[in-house]
Amino acid sequence: MMKNPPEISVFASATVANVACGFDSLGFAIHEPGDVVHVAISSANESRILEITGDGGKLPKAMMKNTAGVAIQVMMDELVRRGHPLASTNFDIKIDKLMPLGSGLGSSAASSVAAVVAANQLLGEPFKRVELLPFVMHAEKIACGAAHADNVAPALLGGFILVRSYDPLEVVTLNVPDDLYCAVLHPQIELLTEDARKILKKNIRLDDAIIQWSNLAGLITGLMKSDYDLISRSLNDIIFEPIRSLLIPGFDAVKGAALEAGALGCSISGSGPSIFALCRGKNSAEIVGKAMQDAINPWKLGSDLYISQVNTQGPRILS
Amino acid sequence: MMKNPPEISVFASATVANVACGFDSLGFAIHEPGDVVHVAISSANESRILEITGDGGKLPKAMMKNTAGVAIQVMMDELVRRGHPLASTNFDIKIDKLMPLGSGLGSSAASSVAAVVAANQLLGEPFKRVELLPFVMHAEKIACGAAHADNVAPALLGGFILVRSYDPLEVVTLNVPDDLYCAVLHPQIELLTEDARKILKKNIRLDDAIIQWSNLAGLITGLMKSDYDLISRSLNDIIFEPIRSLLIPGFDAVKGAALEAGALGCSISGSGPSIFALCRGKNSAEIVGKAMQDAINPWKLGSDLYISQVNTQGPRILS
Repeated sequence: MMKNPPEISVFASATVANVACGFDSLGFAIHEPGDVVHVAISSANESRILEITGDGGKLPKAMMKNTAGVAIQVMMDELVRRGHPLASTNFDIKIDKLMPLGSGLGSSAASSVAAVVAANQLLGEPFKRVELLPFVMHAEKIACGAAHADNVAPALLGGFILVRSYDPLEVVTLNVPDDLYCAVLHPQIELLTEDARKILKKNIRLDDAIIQWSNLAGLITGLMKSDYDLISRSLNDIIFEPIRSLLIPGFDAVKGAALEAGALGCSISGSGPSIFALCRGKNSAEIVGKAMQDAINPWKLGSDLYISQVNTQGPRILS
Repeated sequence: MMKNPPEISVFASATVANVACGFDSLGFAIHEPGDVVHVAISSANESRILEITGDGGKLPKAMMKNTAGVAIQVMMDELVRRGHPLASTNFDIKIDKLMPLGSGLGSSAASSVAAVVAANQLLGEPFKRVELLPFVMHAEKIACGAAHADNVAPALLGGFILVRSYDPLEVVTLNVPDDLYCAVLHPQIELLTEDARKILKKNIRLDDAIIQWSNLAGLITGLMKSDYDLISRSLNDIIFEPIRSLLIPGFDAVKGAALEAGALGCSISGSGPSIFALCRGKNSAEIVGKAMQDAINPWKLGSDLYISQVNTQGPRILS
């Protein structure tokens, strides 16, 4: 038994999923906000979540009911399956929720990613970073009711990510134009991804699908060519935004203000309520962000604003 | 009146539209087959299609019932609207149909593109190449009942083309990997685009749409990165191919043979019956093409085979 069990703290960041036309297939990481998870090797006979701060008491500490716990548990199950010598290691876990819950910014993904990256590091990295993806996807299933990768993949890998396929799982890192910035407005209301999915229809019009996928193709081309005008013209969601934006007070005003202030495009982050705008240059992103925050003021909700480049670094090991 | 009225002959090539996952939004030009249209300034008091060869008498010579005629007429209408000094020019038109009708290879687009490029050239190019697009799209509407751009745009501009938007019309030229080759098998049966569209449903499952557009995003990324493996994994059409392939005798056998022989992917060209396979390298395309032709032999249809790189040059002025 160790006297000073090593502890590792990892920061994993918020992510913007869907990105207008890329429903369930696109996402990118930003620099803040994010969660910090502290993981230590434990002498207890099971892994435990000892403490969660910043969640207002809302998150469960039971391992298999918390995304961070699930992700670590599923990772350890895989080590057991492989007969890894450290497969019976147990962990003590502390979670600092530094980002809002139900925000549409991939809060659950940030916690699960930080947790598995820390645990994997403590064990001497039996898994490559990308191999951790199935574990955090499994955790996402617990949190949202469906195993989507468009938050967890960019949270884990950093950058602007295309989920090309779920079966088999394949993610592709896209080019990020140097001058691409993001302004994210988080109106302080909570929306559950599960609820935001329920209002979507199971079938869509073929004509709408063609418009949507042509825009997605345009966005990808714009990213790969660093063509900001093409990115701007392609950043449209004609299928989901019209429905989901009904759940977000002030959405039309915020989007209008963002475009008026020079954003390349503006839409819902994930399933909302956060609203993101892509911009060319930091200065533009700051002007756009200010305009978005001003526009939501009349709704008296309180809001947080984050200005960031795409975070190509991914999770950060703090200690 | 001129004694020797100038005549210009233009070759415009076949095109592969849809490209598996890019229904109504992707298309590329190949080097052969194609049509040649001869256009001369006429002293008659109206433009006329004097002769059509190679169509077995199937195509109408009336200007407004033939895609080549419509395209030229619509172009001249625009010159009238602009008050162009040559707006009242009339043309004598001869069409050499060197490619099969109803083949899924953009036969009507090849004729209309060759016609307007020739007429525009004769007039001293009042229009830039890309400005001719609305005229050939209008002609396509006459031919197919809908104004699609995924054949006419690559026929007119050459290369691998994304139709990012129809309203407003915007086309984007994609990167073409150096070693990308195409094998196209044309089974000698005729399918009308209009009929092949009728069997499609007006609504599609959201889950299918997500798979389809994620593949499209993958294909675009693969093209832009010259990543042949990614192109290969992305070349899937789970929505239209399963329905439309029912109209193509031997489709499953041909596709199976193409993949077996090493094709990156294989699907229906346009609305069929032609079947295309993308390959890495000329040698591979020749092996794949041979396998496709062998596979359709039992159906005793007769078939044509074309092996080609993507034609980035576009229409060719012959004289």
